Amino acid sequence: MTIENISQAKVFSGWHKQYQHHSDVLNCQMCFAIFLPPQASDTNPVPVLYWLSGLTCSDENFMQKAAAFRIAAKLGIAIVAPDTSPRGDAVADAADGAYDLGLGAGFYVNATQAPWNKHYHMYSYVVDELPKLVEQHFPVTQVRSISGHSMGGHGALMIGLRNSDKYRSISAFSPITHPINCPWGQKAFSHYLGNDSQAWKEYDSVELLKSRQASVPILVDQGEDDSFLQQQLKPELLLAAAEASQSNIKLRMQPGYDHSYFFIQSFIDDHLRFHANYLKD
Amino acid sequence: MTIENISQAKVFSGWHKQYQHHSDVLNCQMCFAIFLPPQASDTNPVPVLYWLSGLTCSDENFMQKAAAFRIAAKLGIAIVAPDTSPRGDAVADAADGAYDLGLGAGFYVNATQAPWNKHYHMYSYVVDELPKLVEQHFPVTQVRSISGHSMGGHGALMIGLRNSDKYRSISAFSPITHPINCPWGQKAFSHYLGNDSQAWKEYDSVELLKSRQASVPILVDQGEDDSFLQQQLKPELLLAAAEASQSNIKLRMQPGYDHSYFFIQSFIDDHLRFHANYLKD
Repeated sequence: MTIENISQAKVFSGWHKQYQHHSDVLNCQMCFAIFLPPQASDTNPVPVLYWLSGLTCSDENFMQKAAAFRIAAKLGIAIVAPDTSPRGDAVADAADGAYDLGLGAGFYVNATQAPWNKHYHMYSYVVDELPKLVEQHFPVTQVRSISGHSMGGHGALMIGLRNSDKYRSISAFSPITHPINCPWGQKAFSHYLGNDSQAWKEYDSVELLKSRQASVPILVDQGEDDSFLQQQLKPELLLAAAEASQSNIKLRMQPGYDHSYFFIQSFIDDHLRFHANYLKD
Repeated sequence: MTIENISQAKVFSGWHKQYQHHSDVLNCQMCFAIFLPPQASDTNPVPVLYWLSGLTCSDENFMQKAAAFRIAAKLGIAIVAPDTSPRGDAVADAADGAYDLGLGAGFYVNATQAPWNKHYHMYSYVVDELPKLVEQHFPVTQVRSISGHSMGGHGALMIGLRNSDKYRSISAFSPITHPINCPWGQKAFSHYLGNDSQAWKEYDSVELLKSRQASVPILVDQGEDDSFLQQQLKPELLLAAAEASQSNIKLRMQPGYDHSYFFIQSFIDDHLRFHANYLKD
């Protein structure tokens, strides 16, 4: 597995770098970004926080707008941000160019339905292929945590809950908690996974928490003035399912905050510090 | 003078807001952004740092990418970011669409040459019209400092040096220090100000420091791996002129850093703290 460096910039004495590579799982060329803190070296590999972004995003949004590097550099945590869908002219997109299906809207599932099943395998890309690539090429350990925003908050919760052997802790900003029960999720899952909604449940955090106790701790921040709160995000359902299964979850409702990166940057330090507690060897 | 709010988001318990308004000085519709720290209120007005951005930027780049709000909220400093040129279909632009002339490239001068002199009066907009507007509409004092990046670093230095009654302190990242002596500046000044290079000198920080001692303190950060360093930026000439005039300047050369916002976010805390020393009443 080879990767090609396409940009690098020093930041907080560490490095932000972008790479492109061929993804076997997604069957296309992909980009990802990595922040390497100044502590990272071959003799001192560091743990990794995987960040999954929301609808319309690429590897760049979090890295440019989240203001996460100051504290990540202090704590000695690497951050990896993949793209949000397969990419390229050969990859299927929404016929009407909708922002919530197709390119930029992979929803972190493995699609089973044509034409999506040719490339849209973001679940396997994030869980398997990308960590393997990252751990092969960079001075990092196999100690991982996962976080994300909105569609990526869904991805972080769902992937973290299903792979508690792979991640030490989970956090999310404004996650889509119950995709099988909201317009964004229903649209995407019906296209990617077909009409049998039974198959949707393994990609739904609320459903997952109904059938099991989370074995790693979860932190969720949600802005109270988020325009997507009631129709799409529904954190109260996540909290109820987590409490019913006696999972270790902290949901913080943040008055006045919206769905933007201004909200994320206001609380990203707390999330990095939360993960740092569990990323120690 | 009326202004219209076009966006707002809570951030670090303060607010980021964008406004549009008609500028009499620029003879067009303009946008600017303001960060108001949580301390700001009618009974507790706060000082303002004006931020001038570089080529191709709008009011958004600094506000989204500089990671400045955490420390500005802590210190109780408002930040105002104007656009980098007049805007709109009626405003002259470079015939070839060049990024370094016309829209997004106002260079903070008052143009005297057609067609630029109809709208390109960014010097007066930043020095006079915008502060008046800000101080009329927001809970801020008339205590101001000024900073900027690249073309905006030139703007901050030049405007701060010429208006020591209006600004308490000046800082810059990667400034164009001597525009009359570099390709970017020579191109812009010849179009905006004509061929008499004598008229250029009042907009050139190195020339200004040759003829006077700066009466306010100056902090400059410059990345050593900035690809524009030698041909366009020339901080060594600024330092020499400042030292010859016994001005209070600190130039910090930062090994490994480039011209990007990753560089700015790495040192913005230092700049905010520097200005805070002088923004106290």
